[in-house]
Amino acid sequence: MSADNQLDNKSQAWSALFSEPMSELVKRYTASVFFDQRLWKADIQGSLAHAEMLAAQGILNAEDHAAIQRGMAQITSEIEAGQFEWKLDLEDVHLNIEARLTTLIGIAGKRLHTGRSRNDQVATDVRLWLRDEIDAIGALLQALQLAMVEVTEQNAEVILPGFTHLQVAQPVAFGHHLLAYVEMFARDAERLADARRRVNRLPLGAAALAGTSYPLDRERVARTLGMEGVCQNSLDAVSDRDFAIEFSSAAALVMVHISRLSEELILWMSQSFGFIDLADRFCTGSSIMPQKKNPDVPELARGKTGRVVGHLMGLITLMKGQPLAYNKDNQEDKEPLFDTVDTLKDTLRIFAEMMGGLTVKPEAMERAALKGYATATDLADYLVKKGLAFRDAHEIVAHAVKTAIATGLDLSQLPLAELQKFDGRIEADVFEVLSLRGSLNARNILGGTAPAQVRAQVARHRARLAAAAAH
Amino acid sequence: MSADNQLDNKSQAWSALFSEPMSELVKRYTASVFFDQRLWKADIQGSLAHAEMLAAQGILNAEDHAAIQRGMAQITSEIEAGQFEWKLDLEDVHLNIEARLTTLIGIAGKRLHTGRSRNDQVATDVRLWLRDEIDAIGALLQALQLAMVEVTEQNAEVILPGFTHLQVAQPVAFGHHLLAYVEMFARDAERLADARRRVNRLPLGAAALAGTSYPLDRERVARTLGMEGVCQNSLDAVSDRDFAIEFSSAAALVMVHISRLSEELILWMSQSFGFIDLADRFCTGSSIMPQKKNPDVPELARGKTGRVVGHLMGLITLMKGQPLAYNKDNQEDKEPLFDTVDTLKDTLRIFAEMMGGLTVKPEAMERAALKGYATATDLADYLVKKGLAFRDAHEIVAHAVKTAIATGLDLSQLPLAELQKFDGRIEADVFEVLSLRGSLNARNILGGTAPAQVRAQVARHRARLAAAAAH
Amino acid sequence: MSADNQLDNKSQAWSALFSEPMSELVKRYTASVFFDQRLWKADIQGSLAHAEMLAAQGILNAEDHAAIQRGMAQITSEIEAGQFEWKLDLEDVHLNIEARLTTLIGIAGKRLHTGRSRNDQVATDVRLWLRDEIDAIGALLQALQLAMVEVTEQNAEVILPGFTHLQVAQPVAFGHHLLAYVEMFARDAERLADARRRVNRLPLGAAALAGTSYPLDRERVARTLGMEGVCQNSLDAVSDRDFAIEFSSAAALVMVHISRLSEELILWMSQSFGFIDLADRFCTGSSIMPQKKNPDVPELARGKTGRVVGHLMGLITLMKGQPLAYNKDNQEDKEPLFDTVDTLKDTLRIFAEMMGGLTVKPEAMERAALKGYATATDLADYLVKKGLAFRDAHEIVAHAVKTAIATGLDLSQLPLAELQKFDGRIEADVFEVLSLRGSLNARNILGGTAPAQVRAQVARHRARLAAAAAH
Amino acid sequence: MSADNQLDNKSQAWSALFSEPMSELVKRYTASVFFDQRLWKADIQGSLAHAEMLAAQGILNAEDHAAIQRGMAQITSEIEAGQFEWKLDLEDVHLNIEARLTTLIGIAGKRLHTGRSRNDQVATDVRLWLRDEIDAIGALLQALQLAMVEVTEQNAEVILPGFTHLQVAQPVAFGHHLLAYVEMFARDAERLADARRRVNRLPLGAAALAGTSYPLDRERVARTLGMEGVCQNSLDAVSDRDFAIEFSSAAALVMVHISRLSEELILWMSQSFGFIDLADRFCTGSSIMPQKKNPDVPELARGKTGRVVGHLMGLITLMKGQPLAYNKDNQEDKEPLFDTVDTLKDTLRIFAEMMGGLTVKPEAMERAALKGYATATDLADYLVKKGLAFRDAHEIVAHAVKTAIATGLDLSQLPLAELQKFDGRIEADVFEVLSLRGSLNARNILGGTAPAQVRAQVARHRARLAAAAAH
Repeated sequence: MSADNQLDNKSQAWSALFSEPMSELVKRYTASVFFDQRLWKADIQGSLAHAEMLAAQGILNAEDHAAIQRGMAQITSEIEAGQFEWKLDLEDVHLNIEARLTTLIGIAGKRLHTGRSRNDQVATDVRLWLRDEIDAIGALLQALQLAMVEVTEQNAEVILPGFTHLQVAQPVAFGHHLLAYVEMFARDAERLADARRRVNRLPLGAAALAGTSYPLDRERVARTLGMEGVCQNSLDAVSDRDFAIEFSSAAALVMVHISRLSEELILWMSQSFGFIDLADRFCTGSSIMPQKKNPDVPELARGKTGRVVGHLMGLITLMKGQPLAYNKDNQEDKEPLFDTVDTLKDTLRIFAEMMGGLTVKPEAMERAALKGYATATDLADYLVKKGLAFRDAHEIVAHAVKTAIATGLDLSQLPLAELQKFDGRIEADVFEVLSLRGSLNARNILGGTAPAQVRAQVARHRARLAAAAAH
Repeated sequence: MSADNQLDNKSQAWSALFSEPMSELVKRYTASVFFDQRLWKADIQGSLAHAEMLAAQGILNAEDHAAIQRGMAQITSEIEAGQFEWKLDLEDVHLNIEARLTTLIGIAGKRLHTGRSRNDQVATDVRLWLRDEIDAIGALLQALQLAMVEVTEQNAEVILPGFTHLQVAQPVAFGHHLLAYVEMFARDAERLADARRRVNRLPLGAAALAGTSYPLDRERVARTLGMEGVCQNSLDAVSDRDFAIEFSSAAALVMVHISRLSEELILWMSQSFGFIDLADRFCTGSSIMPQKKNPDVPELARGKTGRVVGHLMGLITLMKGQPLAYNKDNQEDKEPLFDTVDTLKDTLRIFAEMMGGLTVKPEAMERAALKGYATATDLADYLVKKGLAFRDAHEIVAHAVKTAIATGLDLSQLPLAELQKFDGRIEADVFEVLSLRGSLNARNILGGTAPAQVRAQVARHRARLAAAAAH
Repeated sequence: MSADNQLDNKSQAWSALFSEPMSELVKRYTASVFFDQRLWKADIQGSLAHAEMLAAQGILNAEDHAAIQRGMAQITSEIEAGQFEWKLDLEDVHLNIEARLTTLIGIAGKRLHTGRSRNDQVATDVRLWLRDEIDAIGALLQALQLAMVEVTEQNAEVILPGFTHLQVAQPVAFGHHLLAYVEMFARDAERLADARRRVNRLPLGAAALAGTSYPLDRERVARTLGMEGVCQNSLDAVSDRDFAIEFSSAAALVMVHISRLSEELILWMSQSFGFIDLADRFCTGSSIMPQKKNPDVPELARGKTGRVVGHLMGLITLMKGQPLAYNKDNQEDKEPLFDTVDTLKDTLRIFAEMMGGLTVKPEAMERAALKGYATATDLADYLVKKGLAFRDAHEIVAHAVKTAIATGLDLSQLPLAELQKFDGRIEADVFEVLSLRGSLNARNILGGTAPAQVRAQVARHRARLAAAAAH
Repeated sequence: MSADNQLDNKSQAWSALFSEPMSELVKRYTASVFFDQRLWKADIQGSLAHAEMLAAQGILNAEDHAAIQRGMAQITSEIEAGQFEWKLDLEDVHLNIEARLTTLIGIAGKRLHTGRSRNDQVATDVRLWLRDEIDAIGALLQALQLAMVEVTEQNAEVILPGFTHLQVAQPVAFGHHLLAYVEMFARDAERLADARRRVNRLPLGAAALAGTSYPLDRERVARTLGMEGVCQNSLDAVSDRDFAIEFSSAAALVMVHISRLSEELILWMSQSFGFIDLADRFCTGSSIMPQKKNPDVPELARGKTGRVVGHLMGLITLMKGQPLAYNKDNQEDKEPLFDTVDTLKDTLRIFAEMMGGLTVKPEAMERAALKGYATATDLADYLVKKGLAFRDAHEIVAHAVKTAIATGLDLSQLPLAELQKFDGRIEADVFEVLSLRGSLNARNILGGTAPAQVRAQVARHRARLAAAAAH
């Protein structure tokens, strides 16, 4: 089979069945070449693997095979050099490359399309391309995790007020807080690796929808392309876009994590918190307000979450209720996928860099922790150890906090005599308990915030990331 | 105020407060000029109205005003001729145009920015641009409605099986079915007109966020720009993107209607229905299957619904939980909005054209109506008029249908004697009732499917559309 | 026509055409009575209007009409008293009420269904119900606006640091900030009023899909029900759910505004800001941490935004690609709509109350404004008035801010001599300019933050809200 | 630690810090007990594992441990018997159960809460509950696959017109088409198994946010609960809802597949296709139209896709931009999750049953395949084997199809002489090629539609499903 008829006369009618050519408006509406040309490398890679198999199966002779390899090498050079002429009339990346191949090597170019159709070809191209992009995103996720682990290590003893409900709750190590994000990005990497297994399967050989009568060796092609298996049903192979949705939903989660981190960076950099500073090169000023330094990058990243979430919703809407097998609707899978990949890569790259330019302000963090009575729970626990029921201890501490608020002091700043008015069992050792550092050290449990635990986690992450990088 | 400091040295640091220039990666990540340049006409329009008011208020002298007008005229020519050089270093459309203006006319160019900031400027630009696009979309909606009214008129007597649950229900006029879509598109036009009122309000004068100390006449600018009012709160003016969300949700409904119509066109053109044919110029063939003629345009339009819905979701996600006033997140409003407008305009234009190329196949429609016992309800109603309770009539007809199915005949093809076996009250006049046309004519109620009603609706729509066009 | 056959034997087969009754699993899967029973009042209201018209048209005799009115009055009492027995076997609210009516008044109950079907009946019920809920939501939006206007009035002179990018930008009146939300809620009310016009149209008379052969007077029914018009196309009337989507998208915008306000309340109440306090009755403590007072209500409201946005997405997905006319998919419109209405009403009610319990902390707000060099722009403007180019003034002020940061002082705290080092033209009058209040007063432009403007807006809103309430 | 203070006096103020109790409106707005009570079994399961570990660590004595076990056994009985009284005042499932436990066993009940908070407790409960629901859904997916494999086996030789663009493309085995869905559901099961690994991790021990000072053995608790690991960061443990989003997106894909299958069942059952019949027990009739039999179940399932997609969108919106650690927003994770699980389980169960009640109509399928010139590609391939270029063969066949359309015949019905007019190389053996069965058998390649391949796939699926069931 060959698409040659289209290649020469796309502006004429399709065949004897058609009484008129496609309208110019329709041609523009339905063409994809201006966005799908970015699949060119995957398209050529897939074609070469297909040709190699056709030759091995004796469907293509050695001479034609060599011509195809030669032609594709030249097309690769032309595209890389920016000299390839993409034509709207040739609709998409596939026909553009095939037409050029045929111009370069003649009839052998047409033989390449034997046993395949654009339906299985485009599905193969998108999968190959996405697989490689997942690998690139995986590497960026590693880099970001590493950058955060390093900031953690440099700030192992810095104390941050831990918040719940954005109210000061209990002191936590600043690094412990950062490592929460490392956990998120590590899960993202797991999720993308899982998705990759379902992306990395071969549709080629499904032809238009039903398979082909040529004796193709699909498993050979899968091996050549480094794919983990063959799509086992031709109708599913050409109509499935699950992999795009699954990837997009993993991507949306990455962006949800980025948006949460961004929210915190923005809060922390606002004057009222003042916990951190971002390096100037990640910020903008204002042409109006001379004092301004704005955290543009995290703000924009938070905003771009909407974009990626929107693409996920778009893809799901696209597939809902589609009957089998291939429908033209599916052409709409590409732009959201491309934009999702671009957004993720740019964002992860810039965040890994930005983490390296973080200035941490430990004094402001400690000051904020003290302001919020972050060790009140520790005082209640202290009283429990002295024999009170927690309920009573809780109420006593509430009274103490009330008094402290009225006087504008932290609990640790109240004199012992004052504290003893709330409960006589309070002794001088209470001040160790009321200290931020005492509170921190006490939570020395797997996953807890004690610096010893944070250091153990840093070691674990370093080992994990090194193993993944070596892989 | 003036943004001139940025205009000369954007690749240097922002001000004395910044110790380093913006990183190249960040510059690319945060720049908008490659997509927001399409706002250029609105940007210039807004600037000219602002300058006119500054002059009227005595803030700008006549000479400077004339220079600004001259400079903007030249910039307009340059952009229209494709000779304007857009620079990434100048971030966005506003700074690009302002920098060029200053190059052309010197210090007067800098004075233009008096009393405004990019925050209110960009909000004004997007609103001006969107207002005009809403008008363009309105016109396309009118054209599509008109095209459908015309097909209705040409097929006033054609009978289609009306479906519920995609099962044949009752006969309807083909035109009646098309007019259901005219109702939808008419509602879309109403909805866009409502949204337009909220789009067409002026943020300019809000400056960065708090208003300005210059004695601007905001209502004058609003009048000059044909806007219906002034945003009454400066913080709201710069941070509001409701209008984008409201427009996007109206756009999503347009596409839901298009997707429903597309679904039907695709069904009707499939061989099993065979009710219509689309003109060849809206279809593609297959390079593999010589018999194929595919309804690419409605399929792609159905797919593009996902894109527009995704943008709506993206915009809502963008705005959720943003504190006042302007945040950089908001820059992400533009691309989804632009793509939504483009998608809508292309789709409506192509659908209006495609409706003109519809071939209607009345015989196939009637055949399908007969196959599904579409007049069974009419037989039950007939029996009710002969004195039966509807419940009993319904059951008797169910028996008749069962027999008819067994023999492969329509009810109207059963001999009178056969029908009388089900109920003795059935007489020869039943055949009028059992005819598709008899059934159709009987539903002669406002909004019903009788041809007389359809013709009345056509007249109503024609008058309505003519009035709107005259407006 | 009558649905009586179903009413007696829904657990048996549908008709002679069916060889088996519906499976229990299917019955449960497809029934709606456990959620659509909340439409009962609209269902009875619609039925009474239909009956009144049937009587006026001579289709129903006076005796039957009186019996229907009597029966419906009794059913109303039963439902209100909680004594009505809702039956799964009777599927939905319509059949439950109709069956009970027939039990109560006999054959006349069956005659009520003449000329209608459940397809147009349910569409009518949902529209009637939603129209009234829109009115209730409108009243709650008014109450919330009024509460915010009152807080504004009580805090007319309180100064808040206005933020852009969550960085201190320029001082604004606290009331000016609140009025930004009043603008948003006012737009929400406009949008709901627009949507109401499209909700408040009558589907009844469309029957199953094609209209009916009975001589109904649809416009009379519309008038009786206070509807603004009649759906002009029967197919559209039974299949249209645009009104649900339009309402949901207006509701999503309300929640976006609530989520933005919530975000700010949460920020403002966090210890680092400390700008406000919420009344204790809107907060929770912690069973663990004795010092905690959490802003649960705004947090939960911010979270509920997701719920309402999700319903919008669900409804759009539901309708995408559905062919005409009624499909069973449409039954899925109700639960999201009901939950959206409930969420909105609860949230608006609680926010109006909560606004009354707001404690404002002016000192903390002023302190924060000073910390962020909020009047730096004013200093630059001051220098411009002394003859500098804004660009140079901007740079000079950046140097001054840099020095002030280094010494931990506000610009207004720098001695005159120190300020004059940056520019000799600075004189003693600069301190008025550098004051927060001076900055505020200067922005005395329509929509600006000067207290005079805020007071004018308060007056405008009071008049507007009073007019709406009188309406 | 203990929550006892809340347990007694929730309608009073929280603590000395609070001057007033929670408002009734707020109590209702923020309570979750009416929906989260369904977590009761997981809550008790988690508590028992926690108590067992506390005892093993010597934090709880044997007597208290025994009392807790006894108390929980009784609470289990009470809940199962419907005798447990759920109280709004006690907010949620956790406090309701804890309060009852304390009533039953006294002070030992309060000791259970040692070292945990509701933040880690609720996260644990939801994960335990969801893990078991994933297993239940997995089993239902297996049952559905098996049902479809069985229908495939029973219809191994039935020929269906394969569609692309809903136009007849090439003949496929009906079973081959069904197996495309088996592939989809198999991927769904894979995806859920992947998600399960990330669900099945233990948050308990994170306490409120920072870990606890009690020497808990978290890994022991994980082992007791059959969990695969421990959440390694306490802040992440209490704030993470990724697992809910990941599950929801896998669920959305299941529903996308169900919606595609539903779309086809609805199409196939419409009179114009007439390919299948659904058993009467899955259908409804109409009270108006006696001939109606509607495919309610697939329609409703298609509609329910919107619901599940909406929940996914809601959950993503919920988490976007939330700062660490726990915020009240997170309470909104439960209802969408619960409804998603219910919808999935009901839908999968009913589809597995419905597949068993499918009537296949082979003649109608074959008739439709013939009508669409499904073997035109085979004729072109035939001509290629006779030496033509595919391009020329394609054009020749297009001419033949044009003629066949004009005469209303299939290609195989044209006399040999007629066919030879298009190309002289056509011989009598062409009729084997033009037959549907010949075309089918020719596509005998891995994943292709030849009956031999379909049978091989059936065997593969049977083995795979048996292995999974044995697991």
